[in-house]
Amino acid sequence: MHKITVTTIQTTELVDITQRLQSVVEETGMDDGILYLFCPHTTAGLTLNENWDPDVKRDVLLTLDNDIAPPDSRHRHGEGNSPAHIKSSLFGANTLVFVEGGKLQLGRWQGVYLAEFDGPRQRQVWLKFLHSATG
Amino acid sequence: MHKITVTTIQTTELVDITQRLQSVVEETGMDDGILYLFCPHTTAGLTLNENWDPDVKRDVLLTLDNDIAPPDSRHRHGEGNSPAHIKSSLFGANTLVFVEGGKLQLGRWQGVYLAEFDGPRQRQVWLKFLHSATG
Amino acid sequence: MHKITVTTIQTTELVDITQRLQSVVEETGMDDGILYLFCPHTTAGLTLNENWDPDVKRDVLLTLDNDIAPPDSRHRHGEGNSPAHIKSSLFGANTLVFVEGGKLQLGRWQGVYLAEFDGPRQRQVWLKFLHSATG
Repeated sequence: MHKITVTTIQTTELVDITQRLQSVVEETGMDDGILYLFCPHTTAGLTLNENWDPDVKRDVLLTLDNDIAPPDSRHRHGEGNSPAHIKSSLFGANTLVFVEGGKLQLGRWQGVYLAEFDGPRQRQVWLKFLHSATG
Repeated sequence: MHKITVTTIQTTELVDITQRLQSVVEETGMDDGILYLFCPHTTAGLTLNENWDPDVKRDVLLTLDNDIAPPDSRHRHGEGNSPAHIKSSLFGANTLVFVEGGKLQLGRWQGVYLAEFDGPRQRQVWLKFLHSATG
Repeated sequence: MHKITVTTIQTTELVDITQRLQSVVEETGMDDGILYLFCPHTTAGLTLNENWDPDVKRDVLLTLDNDIAPPDSRHRHGEGNSPAHIKSSLFGANTLVFVEGGKLQLGRWQGVYLAEFDGPRQRQVWLKFLHSATG
């Protein structure tokens, strides 16, 4: 597998890693197939979303942090970061992206994000290229 | 990759695409492996859920639209569809389904859905067939 | 595909299946690639999260069951388990995990869980090993 390191700077943050992934595709000579991404952390995740208007990231995190999984005095986990664990399972630790002709294939407005929910930290993303049956 | 177009008719809607996918499997001669599905949109997603009682779809969307990611005056994204972006990341833009003997393999009550969160629109689903090591 | 059966004992429960998966990897001689997991149920799911402090599981389910998708008198689905269907789509029915040298590759704190949302029941997880292009 290939690994990239992502340094986050805020408690919760959507870090656009699209260009980093495109560079890995180019460096490793992937041509046609599917790039598999795995996040080996339990207080972070991976997601696809709009990378045009930065207010989308802001609004997504505002609702997620304040309403969907806010701090909760009923939580018992000693580290106090249970909301981050919840968000990690909601977003998921995997994603897959098409590659054709050495280029990531995304929708017009899509970017690939590492979702940091308990930063700032150093995070890793593990990558591997999958063959398709017809590619 | 193979692409299918899905026309949605409501603002939020779960469109059962199971039969469309089965047709693609048959047309393209996929036999044993895994069908990968990708949604190139940031206000829609892909999910698996019950396709027997239509009230399941209704209840899922009712809670999602009204309670989990409702309209919110704190949102700033100019298009006003931040709840759709949130729901897209919660459901995810990918799924994978087993194919054996040219038939999609799903649980007894499962269907594959395009989840529309900002319709009505024309949506695409991108597909590719993956080999397995043992299939 | 390979199938394992998981017996759940509570209404909602995160069942750590990491060791079960490692056993399947060893029995079937998988070496380097990616293990694909599929949950053929619409009131359960698959997720990765911390498997060290059991309070993480407790806190995740507490928020999910009470706040994100609680029982709701507006739901119409006759079986009364619409919250379980919602949680199933939020967590997702698929996950993928790296295997190298015959060992599951997870982050330091990660375990693989079957998420039961409408138990107790007998559940299945379907598995298949995927080749990578470079593995």
